[in-house]
Amino acid sequence: MSNQTNFKIVIIGTCDTKLEELLYICDYVSRLSNSLKADSFSITPVLINTGKPSESSHHQKISISIHSLFPFSTTYSSRNDLIASIGGALKSYLLDLVRDDKIHGVLAIGGSCGSSIVADALQSLPFGFPKVLLSTMASGDIKPYIGCSDVSVLYSVVDISGLNSLLKQVLENAAGTVVGMVKSRALMPSIVDSNAEQKKKVAISMFGITTPACDAARAVLEKNNCEVYVFHATGSGGMAMEKLILDGTFDGVLDLTTTELADEAFGGVLSAGSERLKGAAKVGIPTVVSTGALDCINFGPKETVPEKYKERKIHVHNNAVTVVRTNEAENEYLGKIICGRLLENSCAGQRHRIQVWLPLKSVSIIDQNGSPFGDKRADTALHETITVGLCDTGIKVVAKDLDINDERFAEGVAAALLEAMGNR
Amino acid sequence: MSNQTNFKIVIIGTCDTKLEELLYICDYVSRLSNSLKADSFSITPVLINTGKPSESSHHQKISISIHSLFPFSTTYSSRNDLIASIGGALKSYLLDLVRDDKIHGVLAIGGSCGSSIVADALQSLPFGFPKVLLSTMASGDIKPYIGCSDVSVLYSVVDISGLNSLLKQVLENAAGTVVGMVKSRALMPSIVDSNAEQKKKVAISMFGITTPACDAARAVLEKNNCEVYVFHATGSGGMAMEKLILDGTFDGVLDLTTTELADEAFGGVLSAGSERLKGAAKVGIPTVVSTGALDCINFGPKETVPEKYKERKIHVHNNAVTVVRTNEAENEYLGKIICGRLLENSCAGQRHRIQVWLPLKSVSIIDQNGSPFGDKRADTALHETITVGLCDTGIKVVAKDLDINDERFAEGVAAALLEAMGNR
Repeated sequence: MSNQTNFKIVIIGTCDTKLEELLYICDYVSRLSNSLKADSFSITPVLINTGKPSESSHHQKISISIHSLFPFSTTYSSRNDLIASIGGALKSYLLDLVRDDKIHGVLAIGGSCGSSIVADALQSLPFGFPKVLLSTMASGDIKPYIGCSDVSVLYSVVDISGLNSLLKQVLENAAGTVVGMVKSRALMPSIVDSNAEQKKKVAISMFGITTPACDAARAVLEKNNCEVYVFHATGSGGMAMEKLILDGTFDGVLDLTTTELADEAFGGVLSAGSERLKGAAKVGIPTVVSTGALDCINFGPKETVPEKYKERKIHVHNNAVTVVRTNEAENEYLGKIICGRLLENSCAGQRHRIQVWLPLKSVSIIDQNGSPFGDKRADTALHETITVGLCDTGIKVVAKDLDINDERFAEGVAAALLEAMGNR
Repeated sequence: MSNQTNFKIVIIGTCDTKLEELLYICDYVSRLSNSLKADSFSITPVLINTGKPSESSHHQKISISIHSLFPFSTTYSSRNDLIASIGGALKSYLLDLVRDDKIHGVLAIGGSCGSSIVADALQSLPFGFPKVLLSTMASGDIKPYIGCSDVSVLYSVVDISGLNSLLKQVLENAAGTVVGMVKSRALMPSIVDSNAEQKKKVAISMFGITTPACDAARAVLEKNNCEVYVFHATGSGGMAMEKLILDGTFDGVLDLTTTELADEAFGGVLSAGSERLKGAAKVGIPTVVSTGALDCINFGPKETVPEKYKERKIHVHNNAVTVVRTNEAENEYLGKIICGRLLENSCAGQRHRIQVWLPLKSVSIIDQNGSPFGDKRADTALHETITVGLCDTGIKVVAKDLDINDERFAEGVAAALLEAMGNR
C-alpha cells in the first residue's frame, strides 16, 4: 500500500433516512483531502447506500446504489431477514474491494437497524484494516456489532437525525478517525521486528486467576524465540483466538485457560460459544490444553447471579464480576466436553500433536488449598473424566501433582509445546 | 487551535504493567509526526503513568509520573478506592491542560483496571475533543467506560500483554485515530452554518414509537429558525440530554418522550438515572414536557423479562428488545414522579417557563386505540395524577384529546415552545 497515493474510503449508511449526514461526511473527507495536498495524497469518499429504495437513493453522490448492491424486492419474510440479506450482499462486495486493494478504509453510520446491517460485513474485514462504526447504539453492549474484531466504535451521543453542531463534531471526528488510520498505515509500515519471520507464533489463553501460570509460560516461550499472543478468556477473547487459529495465524497454542467452557455450559456471561477448543484440533497444529479456571462460572454484579446458584460457593471478584464454583457433576460434564471436542475435531493421525496437562492440586489461584474455591472432589471429577476419556486415543494426558500457577507446571507445559513445535 | 502547528497528544496507561506497549505508541506518534513534515505540523506524545510506583515508572520517557499526578500511598481502604482516587487526580489534571489549550488529544490504553481508572477523566473532557480508549474490555458493555460522552473506543482483540504483530496493528490504529482527529480539527474548522449563531437550539427526546410526533415537531421548529438536537431515549440518550442542558447548550427543551422514567422506576434496561427530567427546571429554560412512551418498560430479548412481569401485556419489538406495558398503579406513580421532579427543581418565579402537555388518547404508536398496549385506565391514571399534582403550582398543564403522534398535538407542543422562547 505504501507506493500508492490515491486512497478510497467507503462511507456506508441508509440514504433513505440519513442522506444529509452521509453527504456531510463525504464532503468533509473530500475537503480534508484537499487540505492534505502537501502530502501529495488524495482521499476519495465512496458512498454506498444500504437503505430502502427512495427518492434520496438516486442522489448523484451515491457511488454504489442499493440496486447494484442488492436486488431489492418486497418478498422478504421479515425485517430481520431483509437486514441479513443486505448485510450479506455488502459483506461480499466489500471483501472483493479489499482483496483487490481498491478501498483502504470503511466508515459506517447507523442507528440500531443501520448498525445491524453493517455489523457482519465490518467484522469480516481483515485485522488492522481501518473500519469505523459511528452508532447511536454504542453506549451499551457493543458485542453484537464488533464481536471479536477490531472495529473502532464511536457513540453519536445525539441521534443521527438532522445536522446540528454537536452531530457535526461527531461526524467530523469519525471522518478524522478513518482518514487518520488510512494515512498512518500508508506513511508508516509497522515497525518491523527483523527476527519476527523466524519466530514461532504462539497463542495463550489467560484469566486473572491463571496469570502467574501464563506469565511463567510466556517467559519460557519468549526465551525460546516465540512471539506470544495472549487472549483474555472473556468470551470475545476465546472467540478471537479460535478465529485466528483457523485463519492460520499461529504455529502453536497453549490453551491453559479453558474456563469459557464452563460459562458456555452453565449460563455464565463469558461464553465463547460452541466453537471453543475446536480450532487447534481442526487445523492440526501443536497444542497443549489445560483446565485453568474451570472452577468458575462468571456473572456480573452479585445480584445478577441466577437463583439456582445462590446456595453455591460464591466469590465477589469486584463490583462488576461475581464467580460461582462449579460442582462435582458439572466438572465431570466439562471433562467430557473437553475430550469430545478434542477427539471429534482431530483426525487420528494428528492426535500426537495434542496434549492435555492436568494440575491436580488446583485449577486457579482461588482453588488452591485453603482458598475460597478449593474443592478436591470437583477437581478430581474433572481430571479423572479427562484421564479416562482420552485413554488410548492418541492424545497424551500428563497429570502433575501441582497447582496450575506453580512455576514448574507452567514451565512444563511451555517445554512440552516447544518440543511439539520442534523448537527443542 | 487553527493557527497552532505544535500539537500534544497525551498517552495514558499503567507503566508498571504496560510500559512496553505505551512506549511503542509514543514512538509511533513521534515517527508519524516526522513523516507529516510536509504539513509543517508537529505532534508530540506526552506519556502519563497511572500505574503503581515501580522500577518501570522511572523511565525517562514518562512525562508525568504517578507521584506528580497523585501522592501515592498505601493507606487506601480498597483497590476500588485507589482506582477512584487516581482517576480523580487524572481528571482534574487533564481538564486544566485542556482549558489552557496545552493538549489536543488523549489516548488511553487499559485492561479492566486501567480502563476504570481513566473512564471518568475521559468522559469529563469537552464534547468533540479527541479522546480514544483502547481496551481489552471493549467487546461487551462499554457504558461504564463512555457513559453519555463521545469517547472513541477500540477493542484490542489480543490482550495488551506483550507486543506481537496483531497488537502492534491495534496500537498503530489507535495512534492513527487520535492523530487523525487532531489533524482534521486543526486543518478544518467545522463547516459553519452562517445562520447558526442566530438560531435557537432545541433538544427533543425521541423513541421509535414517538417518532412521528418528534418529526412533526422538529419540522415546525426548523421552519422557525431553530437548530434541533434529537436524543434517543435509550438511557444514555436521556443522560446526555440532561448533561448538555446543564452545560447551557440549549435555549429550549421539547421533552416529548419521558419513557426512561418508567425504566428507572420499574427495573427496565433503559434507565437514564435519577437526574432525568431535572435539568431544564434547574436551569430555568423554556421546556414543554409530555408523556411519550410511558406505556413501556424496556427489556432485552423476551427471555430476559423478569418473572413478575410475565402476566402483563408484552410486546416483542425485535430480537433484542421486548417491552412490558405499565399498569394503572405504575402510571399513577410515574405521574407523581413527573410532578415532583418539575416542582422540586424549579424555583417559583420560573415555573411559567414549564408546560406539560397530555395526549389523552395515547402516549405511543402501540398505545393507540386497538393497538397491543392500548389501556385507557393506565393512561388516565397518569394524566389525572399530573393534572391534580400541578394544579395551582405555576406550571401550566395542557390536555388534548389526541394521540401523541397526531400531527396537531406535535404542532401544538412545538408552537408552545416557540412562544415560550419568544420566537413567535
